[in-house]
Amino acid sequence: MTQKPVLYTCAASRGLRATWAAEEAGVEIDLKILPFPPRYLAPDYLEINPLGTVPLLIDGDARMTESCAIAHYLATKDGITDLAVAPGDTDYAEYCDYTYHADATITFPQTVYMRFAIFEKDKGWADAGHAYAKWFYKRLVKIEQRLQGRDFLCADRFTIADICVGYALILAKNVGLDDGIPAGLKAYRERLTGREAYKRAAEREEKGRAALPS
Amino acid sequence: MTQKPVLYTCAASRGLRATWAAEEAGVEIDLKILPFPPRYLAPDYLEINPLGTVPLLIDGDARMTESCAIAHYLATKDGITDLAVAPGDTDYAEYCDYTYHADATITFPQTVYMRFAIFEKDKGWADAGHAYAKWFYKRLVKIEQRLQGRDFLCADRFTIADICVGYALILAKNVGLDDGIPAGLKAYRERLTGREAYKRAAEREEKGRAALPS
Repeated sequence: MTQKPVLYTCAASRGLRATWAAEEAGVEIDLKILPFPPRYLAPDYLEINPLGTVPLLIDGDARMTESCAIAHYLATKDGITDLAVAPGDTDYAEYCDYTYHADATITFPQTVYMRFAIFEKDKGWADAGHAYAKWFYKRLVKIEQRLQGRDFLCADRFTIADICVGYALILAKNVGLDDGIPAGLKAYRERLTGREAYKRAAEREEKGRAALPS
Repeated sequence: MTQKPVLYTCAASRGLRATWAAEEAGVEIDLKILPFPPRYLAPDYLEINPLGTVPLLIDGDARMTESCAIAHYLATKDGITDLAVAPGDTDYAEYCDYTYHADATITFPQTVYMRFAIFEKDKGWADAGHAYAKWFYKRLVKIEQRLQGRDFLCADRFTIADICVGYALILAKNVGLDDGIPAGLKAYRERLTGREAYKRAAEREEKGRAALPS
């Protein structure tokens, strides 16, 4: 019997992309919820992931640390499924593009905002954080235009690209950046978070968080 | 006859990943070099890319703006080649992971450094930029460990993952962040920039830059 992939993450972090993708793809994973931030509250974790970041997926010899990569991997590791788009199929280019766009362009400015305007706001760099909040809002134009007249980003169906981009919009709501999100993108987010697989994933993570020693 | 993909970029920007991938894959592209930053010096560009970012690949109806996605796409659009790794093959997980890691984790902190410590250093946020330089150095541990005893990141051969990660190391040199790069990663970068396809790509971009109206 093959061992299940093990996913280390913190509840509601970027790792939610991986937990959610596992639920959508029907891939069994062993979910390990860590306290946040793990590099301080679970220092042993650095032994298995020297970056100290979450998520971490261990599958056999493989160690993956990028949430969008893990989501895509879980939906394709035994062959490309309908949750991804195969080379040559309609919207293959867009599928590739949005799965990268989600973290490299739509999530990263939010993390700069979170650091300077929330976690380290006493350091005097809050305005630098707000500059990245503004940058984030401006970068929403591509997905906003793409979703005009579409329910999902690619191939007229729900794919991992929606998980990747959707999480960036969920994060915006969680960290107080919702005012600048256009209505069309809020409606898109509602469609995504209304999915049964999303609800199961969020519930699994919350259950893991609730079980952490206080 | 099918139209060649058109790549808009600025010389030596992240778009170099795309120009380089095209050379490695033997895909003919129509390369259009823009002045930097295009959103101010080539405002018409906003009409075809409302983000104002480079690169932009136009291939038929597709519009791609993520450099790692474009590099991967050019090597797989007509089917997965040896420049990528297919589902089920050795290091498929790692290939996925490093192509995302390159921009989302290794390039983005450099862009924050560039903004606050170089382009906008008069705004008083230079230290915030240096905080991200430090963050960048710490995030090199994963690729440093991976490349111990390996010439390339995945599958014992050169792949798009090396283009994606390699560009992040090239950028570090270009923006004055080379002091914190471990020797092993500098040697890896030398192996990559010594490739004929890399040299052709860099030369094409420089030629395009030299031809811009001054």
